[in-house]
Amino acid sequence: MRFSSLDELAAGCRGLRDGDSAAAAAASARQAELTKPPGSLGRLEDAAVWLARWQGRAVPRLDSVAVLIFAANHGVTARGVSAYPAAVTEQMVANYARGGAAINQLAKLAGAELMVIPLDLDRPTGDFTQTAAMDVPEFLAAVDAGYRSVPADCDLLALGDMGIGNTTAASALCAALLGGGAARWVGHGTGLDEAGLQRKRAAVDAALARHRAVADDPLAAAAALGGRELAAMMGATLAAHHRQIPTVLDGFIGTAAVLPLARIDARLLDHCIAAHVSAEAGHRGLLDALRLKPLLSLDMRLGEATGAAVAILLLRAALACHAGMATFAEAGVAGRVD
Amino acid sequence: MRFSSLDELAAGCRGLRDGDSAAAAAASARQAELTKPPGSLGRLEDAAVWLARWQGRAVPRLDSVAVLIFAANHGVTARGVSAYPAAVTEQMVANYARGGAAINQLAKLAGAELMVIPLDLDRPTGDFTQTAAMDVPEFLAAVDAGYRSVPADCDLLALGDMGIGNTTAASALCAALLGGGAARWVGHGTGLDEAGLQRKRAAVDAALARHRAVADDPLAAAAALGGRELAAMMGATLAAHHRQIPTVLDGFIGTAAVLPLARIDARLLDHCIAAHVSAEAGHRGLLDALRLKPLLSLDMRLGEATGAAVAILLLRAALACHAGMATFAEAGVAGRVD
Repeated sequence: MRFSSLDELAAGCRGLRDGDSAAAAAASARQAELTKPPGSLGRLEDAAVWLARWQGRAVPRLDSVAVLIFAANHGVTARGVSAYPAAVTEQMVANYARGGAAINQLAKLAGAELMVIPLDLDRPTGDFTQTAAMDVPEFLAAVDAGYRSVPADCDLLALGDMGIGNTTAASALCAALLGGGAARWVGHGTGLDEAGLQRKRAAVDAALARHRAVADDPLAAAAALGGRELAAMMGATLAAHHRQIPTVLDGFIGTAAVLPLARIDARLLDHCIAAHVSAEAGHRGLLDALRLKPLLSLDMRLGEATGAAVAILLLRAALACHAGMATFAEAGVAGRVD
Repeated sequence: MRFSSLDELAAGCRGLRDGDSAAAAAASARQAELTKPPGSLGRLEDAAVWLARWQGRAVPRLDSVAVLIFAANHGVTARGVSAYPAAVTEQMVANYARGGAAINQLAKLAGAELMVIPLDLDRPTGDFTQTAAMDVPEFLAAVDAGYRSVPADCDLLALGDMGIGNTTAASALCAALLGGGAARWVGHGTGLDEAGLQRKRAAVDAALARHRAVADDPLAAAAALGGRELAAMMGATLAAHHRQIPTVLDGFIGTAAVLPLARIDARLLDHCIAAHVSAEAGHRGLLDALRLKPLLSLDMRLGEATGAAVAILLLRAALACHAGMATFAEAGVAGRVD
């Protein structure tokens, strides 16, 4: 295993990368020459330059795009915190395999390869109102599974999740690391009713009380309050940072998963872009806390990398313009008057 | 010509269509069965139902998608209201023909056919600080050109513009029909400096003073203060309404172009979706006035249907999920607990 202790993992988090500033500068210079008013493609221009920086290519490519979904089960579902039974996690994994889920359609449309990584589905995490979600070896194994899952030759990575109960885990992790308690972070998840919402808030507040001792330690908090899929998304994000692969974060779970990295060093997310702000209650505040500006705001709240897959379409639009447009000189178009 | 007088055009604007409510209801029912929490695809679900209503198909299709760009020149450019010389309009039309512009790349990515319709480029409209932009026959000819340009067998229409000086025309039209003067509606356009912005505001206020008499008449105002490309976009939107073709509006110009229709009857835009809110100053307020909620907010301000083309990608995402996902029953996924 790559990381045999929390200290080794923390040391891995000190390996900061900057991307390729020369490629980014060349991409910016190219944008200024294309037949459009400077800046008029807005965030599509920024996205092209960001891809250039993290791919180290003035004209980036999106030939090999991977969407990874990590799936896991959560002991806290015993507290009645989800509108769906825990069995749905495994049933949805089977649905991905048969091509019936939203992400199957969206990954195909986005020209991305979908990989689904189930993590010990028959072994839910502990109910963190009573005990730690994972002990340290379990947590490190999940981080490692994510770290190792990033494919070779990857131009762009997008990360998603499936796990009934995981908005509860994500809320607990946000509350532990950012404060504010359940009231700030707990939302309706997959569509919880009011009674369920009360149970979910109570579970998060109970977890915070029980695990107060780890709230200052991002990695220990991720073990005690997170989930295997969150740990794996964090590991994959760290691997992508080390390998300088531009990475698309999905919704509330996907953003909460990388919060521990940001608490260690915000620059660990410099290679990441936020796909969207979801309809889940805590996501906007979490993005603000991480200074991530989402590309999309479509009231989506499905998880499974669906927001990230839609964002890949925007990145393809950004790249199509960046790579395919003529310059003013090539097209014989006059420049500015002033 | 279809419309030989403003009265005939106004009569054409009374031919309201409702779309197909049964198809919309069937699409909504299908969305509720797909393997996701109800509503969790957010605005993608709404978009699928909207396509179903206006195509009259419970499972819509996007086999034939047309992007139309209307190009025209503006006499008001003599007032120094643009950062670019008027010759750029024709040069960009040539750039479209050679495939070098942003919209060429984006239309291709979106699987749309691009059609560019230049409207009397050698005959700019009148300088509306001094005279009407168009007399009634000129205006009706442009509306008619737009009306006739909507292709047969069109599953989705997107409309765009090219015309140096046309943010000035769009601002004047908005100010005439919605009030607030130049201060409310004039922005930097393609990137005007402060001195240019002052000239542009002065031109709009001069036009409003000169054409005060037509401010209560949406069609007369469109003739006096608009432009040929705006009139053609209005005509194409009206044709799409009559034929019940779902239509994607682009940015500030594209939205201002259909403002006269909305002032006649807001339901004339029921078949339209706003692609994005642009970085141009007046667009957000204009969308609010028309109660149009943009799909995207990417700080784009390029025109030429670029925002609309990016929005087509989102509509393809909406349709991919709507048409391709398995239902809970098909996938053997459990439903809600409550």
